[in-house]
Amino acid sequence: MRDLIKRARWSQATAAIAILVAALGMAIPAGPVRSEIPEETFKALGLDKSASPKELYEALSKRYNDPAQGAGPGSLSKFWEPIPITKYLNPRDFYEPPQSVDVEATRTQCVECHTSTTPGWVHSWQKSVHGNLDEIRTLPDSDSRAYKKAMIVEVEGNLRSMGVLGEGEALKEVGCIDCHIGVNKTKGQHKTELKMPDAAACGQCHVKQFGERESERDTQTWPQDQWPAGRPSHALSYKANVETAIWAAMEQREVAEGCTFCHTLQNTCNSCHTRHEFSAVEARKPQVCAMCHNGVDHNEYEGYMYSKHGTVYQARGDTWDWNAQLADAMDKGGMNAPTCQFCHMEYQGRFTHNLVRKVRWGFEPTTKIAENLSHPWFEQRKEAWVGTCTNCHSERFSRSYLEFIDKGTIDGIKVTEDAKVVLTKLYEDGLLPGQKTNRPTVPEPEKENGPGNFFNLFWHKGNNPTVVEYEFAEMWEHHKIKHFKGLAHMNPGGYTYSEGWSQLIKSAVRINDESTRLRDVAELRSKVEKLQPPEKRGDILDLRTPAQKAALGGLGGLLLLAGLGLYLRQRR
Amino acid sequence: MRDLIKRARWSQATAAIAILVAALGMAIPAGPVRSEIPEETFKALGLDKSASPKELYEALSKRYNDPAQGAGPGSLSKFWEPIPITKYLNPRDFYEPPQSVDVEATRTQCVECHTSTTPGWVHSWQKSVHGNLDEIRTLPDSDSRAYKKAMIVEVEGNLRSMGVLGEGEALKEVGCIDCHIGVNKTKGQHKTELKMPDAAACGQCHVKQFGERESERDTQTWPQDQWPAGRPSHALSYKANVETAIWAAMEQREVAEGCTFCHTLQNTCNSCHTRHEFSAVEARKPQVCAMCHNGVDHNEYEGYMYSKHGTVYQARGDTWDWNAQLADAMDKGGMNAPTCQFCHMEYQGRFTHNLVRKVRWGFEPTTKIAENLSHPWFEQRKEAWVGTCTNCHSERFSRSYLEFIDKGTIDGIKVTEDAKVVLTKLYEDGLLPGQKTNRPTVPEPEKENGPGNFFNLFWHKGNNPTVVEYEFAEMWEHHKIKHFKGLAHMNPGGYTYSEGWSQLIKSAVRINDESTRLRDVAELRSKVEKLQPPEKRGDILDLRTPAQKAALGGLGGLLLLAGLGLYLRQRR
Amino acid sequence: MRDLIKRARWSQATAAIAILVAALGMAIPAGPVRSEIPEETFKALGLDKSASPKELYEALSKRYNDPAQGAGPGSLSKFWEPIPITKYLNPRDFYEPPQSVDVEATRTQCVECHTSTTPGWVHSWQKSVHGNLDEIRTLPDSDSRAYKKAMIVEVEGNLRSMGVLGEGEALKEVGCIDCHIGVNKTKGQHKTELKMPDAAACGQCHVKQFGERESERDTQTWPQDQWPAGRPSHALSYKANVETAIWAAMEQREVAEGCTFCHTLQNTCNSCHTRHEFSAVEARKPQVCAMCHNGVDHNEYEGYMYSKHGTVYQARGDTWDWNAQLADAMDKGGMNAPTCQFCHMEYQGRFTHNLVRKVRWGFEPTTKIAENLSHPWFEQRKEAWVGTCTNCHSERFSRSYLEFIDKGTIDGIKVTEDAKVVLTKLYEDGLLPGQKTNRPTVPEPEKENGPGNFFNLFWHKGNNPTVVEYEFAEMWEHHKIKHFKGLAHMNPGGYTYSEGWSQLIKSAVRINDESTRLRDVAELRSKVEKLQPPEKRGDILDLRTPAQKAALGGLGGLLLLAGLGLYLRQRR
Repeated sequence: MRDLIKRARWSQATAAIAILVAALGMAIPAGPVRSEIPEETFKALGLDKSASPKELYEALSKRYNDPAQGAGPGSLSKFWEPIPITKYLNPRDFYEPPQSVDVEATRTQCVECHTSTTPGWVHSWQKSVHGNLDEIRTLPDSDSRAYKKAMIVEVEGNLRSMGVLGEGEALKEVGCIDCHIGVNKTKGQHKTELKMPDAAACGQCHVKQFGERESERDTQTWPQDQWPAGRPSHALSYKANVETAIWAAMEQREVAEGCTFCHTLQNTCNSCHTRHEFSAVEARKPQVCAMCHNGVDHNEYEGYMYSKHGTVYQARGDTWDWNAQLADAMDKGGMNAPTCQFCHMEYQGRFTHNLVRKVRWGFEPTTKIAENLSHPWFEQRKEAWVGTCTNCHSERFSRSYLEFIDKGTIDGIKVTEDAKVVLTKLYEDGLLPGQKTNRPTVPEPEKENGPGNFFNLFWHKGNNPTVVEYEFAEMWEHHKIKHFKGLAHMNPGGYTYSEGWSQLIKSAVRINDESTRLRDVAELRSKVEKLQPPEKRGDILDLRTPAQKAALGGLGGLLLLAGLGLYLRQRR
Repeated sequence: MRDLIKRARWSQATAAIAILVAALGMAIPAGPVRSEIPEETFKALGLDKSASPKELYEALSKRYNDPAQGAGPGSLSKFWEPIPITKYLNPRDFYEPPQSVDVEATRTQCVECHTSTTPGWVHSWQKSVHGNLDEIRTLPDSDSRAYKKAMIVEVEGNLRSMGVLGEGEALKEVGCIDCHIGVNKTKGQHKTELKMPDAAACGQCHVKQFGERESERDTQTWPQDQWPAGRPSHALSYKANVETAIWAAMEQREVAEGCTFCHTLQNTCNSCHTRHEFSAVEARKPQVCAMCHNGVDHNEYEGYMYSKHGTVYQARGDTWDWNAQLADAMDKGGMNAPTCQFCHMEYQGRFTHNLVRKVRWGFEPTTKIAENLSHPWFEQRKEAWVGTCTNCHSERFSRSYLEFIDKGTIDGIKVTEDAKVVLTKLYEDGLLPGQKTNRPTVPEPEKENGPGNFFNLFWHKGNNPTVVEYEFAEMWEHHKIKHFKGLAHMNPGGYTYSEGWSQLIKSAVRINDESTRLRDVAELRSKVEKLQPPEKRGDILDLRTPAQKAALGGLGGLLLLAGLGLYLRQRR
Repeated sequence: MRDLIKRARWSQATAAIAILVAALGMAIPAGPVRSEIPEETFKALGLDKSASPKELYEALSKRYNDPAQGAGPGSLSKFWEPIPITKYLNPRDFYEPPQSVDVEATRTQCVECHTSTTPGWVHSWQKSVHGNLDEIRTLPDSDSRAYKKAMIVEVEGNLRSMGVLGEGEALKEVGCIDCHIGVNKTKGQHKTELKMPDAAACGQCHVKQFGERESERDTQTWPQDQWPAGRPSHALSYKANVETAIWAAMEQREVAEGCTFCHTLQNTCNSCHTRHEFSAVEARKPQVCAMCHNGVDHNEYEGYMYSKHGTVYQARGDTWDWNAQLADAMDKGGMNAPTCQFCHMEYQGRFTHNLVRKVRWGFEPTTKIAENLSHPWFEQRKEAWVGTCTNCHSERFSRSYLEFIDKGTIDGIKVTEDAKVVLTKLYEDGLLPGQKTNRPTVPEPEKENGPGNFFNLFWHKGNNPTVVEYEFAEMWEHHKIKHFKGLAHMNPGGYTYSEGWSQLIKSAVRINDESTRLRDVAELRSKVEKLQPPEKRGDILDLRTPAQKAALGGLGGLLLLAGLGLYLRQRR
C-alpha cells in the first residue's frame, strides 16, 4: 500500500528516489567522510570521490585562500582601510599576534596563564568536547551524543592522512595550541606563531564539515545569473561584504565594519559554533542564526519565532533532547516542530553544512526570479522543499503552501516595480527636491544608478538621497524582502500586516503622493514663472525634460502674446 | 476577621458570592461536564442544564454549521475565490480528500504508512495523550496530570451518550482514524472519507470544551451595539475575516489568506492545541497566543513579555509545573506570575475556553465604549477583573490600575478623534493630494467611507489613499490600539513611549502639519490663479467645496474689477 | 611567565592591582558588610569605614529621605497631581493604608487572611528565602546557595546593631509583618500602621546592598557636568522623572505615570527583586532588566538578545546554575556568556548593586562627552571596562572593541549635530509650517528651547511641534542613542542597519529634504507676493528674518516701480 501511495505521489522516478534517500537519511547514521559533500564540489575541485582526506583538504584550502576565488579584502580594497577590530573579523588578511607578549608556551602553560588572564575562555573550553575527548569516547551507545565517537575516529583518520598524527596515535585533547599554533604541536611562540583560526584551520580536523560548507560555492549557481555564482551564501559572505561599493565607500569605518560582524562566516566557523565551547547543541538552536538573521532586511528569526513552528519550539523545546543530531532529532530527540537548522540544513533527507541547496528566491525576490520559476533549476529545488515539508505535512499541503509563498511574493514584487516606475519618472523629469541644485555625488567606488539605490540607506549629503528615494530603498530592500521572508516562514502578520504587504502599500502610497505633490508644485512654479517679468525668467530656461520643454513652449507663446500686445498698444 | 475584610471589600452580596466561587474554583477539581458552560449558551440553544451530552453536542454542532449563524464563506463570498491553501484554513467548506491516494486503510495501516511518508505527525501523536491513554489512566493521584483521568471518563461518557461507544466499552486509543474518518471507526477510504477535523469534530469527544469555546458567541453581547453580537471573539473569528469588505475585495488572494491564517479559531481547535501532540502544556504557555496576538494592531504578546508579569514568566517559568491545570497553577504548579491564559480564561474564579467574558474595550477602544463604561454590563465585567487581579494584588491596587487603564485609554481616543477632525476637514475641502484628479474607486465590495479607512492599509491606487489617510489609519488602527494594549498589559514603554502615546502624537503632528501645508499651498495656488489672465482660469471652475465657491466669489470680484477697468479705459 | 605577560599587558601598577583584585574577587566569598560599598559613599556620608551597621544605615536613610538630596515629589510638584496608582509608585510620599480594613492582625493572621484574599502573594512568599530561613541555614556548603547562610548571619548582625534583635536572638522568619509593619513586630493595625516598603525598609536588614545601591549617587560625578551629580542612575531615577518638565506639564497623568512605572528604582528594591519571592535567580537574568531597558531610547535588552552574548545565553543558559552568585557564575555556575548583570554589576572584579561605575557615554552620547574621553575620569572607567571584557576576551580585542564603540558613537553624534544645524536654520528663518500662525505655547513648567525638544515626543498642539521637529527629536533621543546602545551591546544590526546608523541617515535625509522643500515654497510664495497688487501685500510685512527683509527689499523696489508707473501714466 505504501507503494501505491508513493506511485500516486511522485510522478517522476527521480522524485521517488529522492524520497527514498530521504527516508533512509533519517534512520542511517552519518556515512563516510565525504559522502555528504555534493558532487558539484568534487567536480569543481577536479577531484574524484575517492580522494584522500589530505587531497580533499588541500584542494579545499587552496581555493579557500585564493583571492581569485573570493579570498582576501577584494577588488575594492584600495578604497578602505582596516581598523583595529578588523584583524579579528578577517584574521586571514589582517591578524598579527600582539607584540606585547613575548613568551614561548607549552600546552599546559597556555591554559595555566589564561585561567588567570581570561578565565572565561578556559571555562568554556573545559566544558567543550575539545576539552575532554575521553568523556565522549566512553559514552554508551544509548547516549544521544554517541555519534560523536565516530567523529573523533574520523578526525584522527584525517590527521593521519595528513601526517599530523602517527599511525596508531590517538588525539589526546584539543587544547589552545592545536588551533592557535598548530595541530598536535607541543609549544608555540606567542609573539610570532599565534594564529586566529579561520575555517581552513577548523577544516584540517573537520574535513567533511569544511567540504560541506565550502560546497555552497558550487551548488549556488543561478541559471539566469540572478546572482553571481556561489552567492548569496555563507561560504562567500565576506566577499559579498567587501565587494559592496557603499561598504568600501563609507568614511565611517566603524559603521561599515558593523556589516562585517555578520559577514564573517566565510572567514570563520565560530560565527555559529561559538568559541570556546563550540557547542553542537547551541549550533542547533534557532538563536544561533538570530544574531545575523534578524532585522530590516533579513527578519527570518522574527518570522520563525512568530510562526507556529517557532511558538511550538518555544513552548516545547525544553522537553527535546538537543544532544541528538539533526537526523535523529524527531525520532530520538522528540522534536515536534522544525528549527531553522532542520529545514535549511536538510537536502533530500540528509543534513549538511550547505544551507543553500534549496534556495530559490535568494536574498531578494526579483522579477528575474519570478519569471523563471518553471525552469528545471528552480523546479528541482521546489521538489526538494516538498521533501522537507513532507516530514510533517502532506504532499498536497506542502505544494499548496509553496505555491502560496511564490504567488504572494510575486504580488509584493509587483507593488514594488509599479512604485519604481513612478519614482523613475520623477527622477527623469528632474523633479526630486534639490535634484538640480543640491545633489552631491556619492563617494567612490559607489555610483548612483538611477533613483533609490542601496547606498541611500547608509550615506547622505545635501539632497542626495531624497526622502522618496530612501522610501523606495526601504521598499525593495526591506519591505519586499520581509514580505517574502514572512511568507516563507509562516508568520501571517509578517507578510500581511505588521511587515510586508501593508508596509509595501505604505511606501507605494508615499511615492504616489509625493509624485502628485511635486508635480503640483512644479506646475504652480511654472505658472508663477510665466507671470514673472521677462528678465526674471532666465532661471527656468533649462530644456532637459519634456515637461520643461512644454513649459518653454508655453512661455514662448506668452512672449508672443506680450509682443503682440505691445505692438497693438503702440499702434493704438 | 476574614469576614470583616470581605464586608469592607465587597459592598454587594453578588460580589461576595463571586469571590466565594472564585476561592472554591481555585481548590475544587473540574466539575461535571456542563458546569463551566455559561448559562447564556444553554439559553441561546434552548436547552436545559440537564441536557444529555448528545443533546448539547447536537445543538452546538447545528449552530456551528449554520450559515445564518456565522458558518461558511459568508455574505461576500461571490467576490472572492478560494486558493489551494484555503481548504486547510476552512476545511468545513473547502476541503476535499486528495484524489491521488486511493486506498482503504485500517488504524494500523494509517500509522504504518504515515510513519514513512510524514514521520513528524506520527512522532507527535505518539508523544500525545491521544497516543497513549493508558499512561494517563495509570497515573498516581499525586501526579499533576492526574486530572486528565476524569477527562477520559468524561469523554467516554459523551461517546456513550451519542451511541459511539457501547455500554462498558472503553476508548482504547485516539488514532488517526478517530479524527480523520470517524470516532471508533475501524477503517476508512482515503480518497472519499478523509476529513480535516473542525472544532465540531473535536467537540464530539470534548463536549464541555466545545461548549465553552462556542459560548463566546453568547456572552459577548454589547449593550450599545459597539460590536455585532458575539464579536470580537475566537468563536466567530472566521466570520469576522470573511465579512471584511477589503479582505473580500483584494485581488491578491495569497495576501488576503494571510489574515485567515490567524482567523481560523472558529474553524479549528488546532490553532492553540497544535496537531498532533495537542499538548495542554503548550496551550498554557504565552507563546501559543503569540502567533496571532503580536504586531501592529494586537501586540498583546509584546506588551506582556515586557511587563513585569512576562519578565517573571521568562525568568522563573522553568521552575513551574506546567502540567498542573490552570486552577492548580499557583498552588501546585508554583506559578508566581500570570500568563495570558491565567487572566483571560479565568472568570469569577473558574477557568474555561471562553476568553471574552471580561472584555470591555474589545479590540479597538472607541468613544462609544468610553461613554458607556458606567453601564452595568461594563461595570460587572470590571468587577470580574478586580476578582482576577486580586489573586495577586490588593483590591485597591487592582481598582487603581483598572481605572488607570481606562483613563489612559480615553486620552488616546481623544488625540485620535481630534486628528480625525483635521483630516475630515481636509477631505471635505477637497485638499488631499490628487483628491480631484487621481482618486480611483476602491474595488467592490469595499466602499470608501470618508477619509482614513481600514482598507487604506491594504490597497492603493493612484492617490487613493493619500499619505495623510494612511497615517490616520495607522493612528486609529495601530497606535490607539497599541496604546490601550500596552496599558492593559502593564508594559510602560508600550503606551507612553515606544508604542502608543508617543506614536499617536507623531501621527497627530503629521496630520496637523499636512493640513497647514496643504492649505498654505492651496492659498498660494489660489493667489496664482487670480493672477492668471482670464482665459487661463477655467480649470478652477469647480464648485464642489465651500473653499472653491469662496474662491470663485473672489474670481467673480476680480472679473468685475477687470470689467470695470476695461470700461474706464475705454471711456478714457 | 604569567608575570611576564602581566608586565607586558599593564603599563601601570594600578592596573596590575586592579586585575589582581579582580582575580581574587572571582574566588573569595563576599566579604564583611561594607567592604563592597565604594569609599566615595563613606566620604559623602561623613562616615568612617569602621562605622557600625546602625550608623551606616541611619546615615544612608537620612539622605535617602532628604528632599534636598532627591527625595520626594520634587521641585515641580505644584504642577501635577497624584492619581490613585501614584501611591504605589512612590509610597514614601503618597501611600496611605486603605481605610476599608480596620483590623489588628498577628503574623499568622496576616498570612491566613491573605491566603484567601490574595493567594498569589502568599504562594510567592512561601517559595522565597524569607518564607523559609531554616532551609537556607541547613544547606550543605556544596550547595550553590550556601553563600546565603552568611547573608542571614549578616542581617542578624545588622538588626542587633540597631537593637531590633536581641543578643543571641535569631531571625525566625521574614513574614508580611516585618516589611509591612516593622521588623520583628508581633502584630499591626492594618488601617493605620500598614506600609509599602521602600528601599530604606529593605535596607534595614540589607544594609550592605542598600549602601551599594545608594552609592550610585556618589560615584556618578561627571567631570564636565555632562549630567547633574549622581545621574543618570537607578538611585536617583525617580528624581529624574519628577524633575522632567514635560512629565510635570502633561495633563494626561496616566500617560505620564507610565514613565514613572520604570522610574521607581529609587523608591523600591522590588523593581528587580519582584515581590514576594524576591528571587535572586530572577534578579540575575537579563529579563529582569528588560521591562525598563527596552524600546525606542534604551533598547539595551534587544541589543543584548541579538548579540552573540545574548544568543549564547538563550541557547545555553538552561544548563547554567543560576543559584550561583555572580562572582561564582563562570566557575561554579558554568556560565559561558555574560548577562547584563555580569558586566554591569562588576567593577574591578567585584560585584555590587552599583551599576554605574563604568558609565562613560551615559544615557545619551553627546559632543561634551566625546570631547572629553581622554580625561582621566573617562580613561579610568575605560580601563575598568577592559578589566570586565578580559574575563573572556584578550586585552587587545577588548581595547579594539571599546575604541570601536567610541568612534562609531562619535559618527552618530556628528550626523545628528549636522541635522540640527539645518533644522535650527529653518526655525530661525521662521519657515517651519505654521511657525508664525499656529504655534501654541507648551504648558508650564515646560519651555520651548529652540526646535526639536524632548517634549515634542509627548505633547502637541496646532503646529507645535512640526513634523521635522518630531523627526529631529527622534533622531537625537532615539536613533542616536540606539546607535550607541547597539555598538555597546555588540548587536551589528542594532547600529548599522535595523536601528542606529541607517535610521540616523533616514532622519537626516528627511530634514534636508524638508529644508529644501520649505525654502522652495517660501521662494515661490515670495515671488507670488511680489506679483500681488500693492494692497494685498500687507500680510508679509514681518521683518523678523533676513529672508523676509530681502523680500521687503523686493517689495520696496516694486512699490517704487509702481509709483513710477502711476506718475508716468498721470503724465501721459
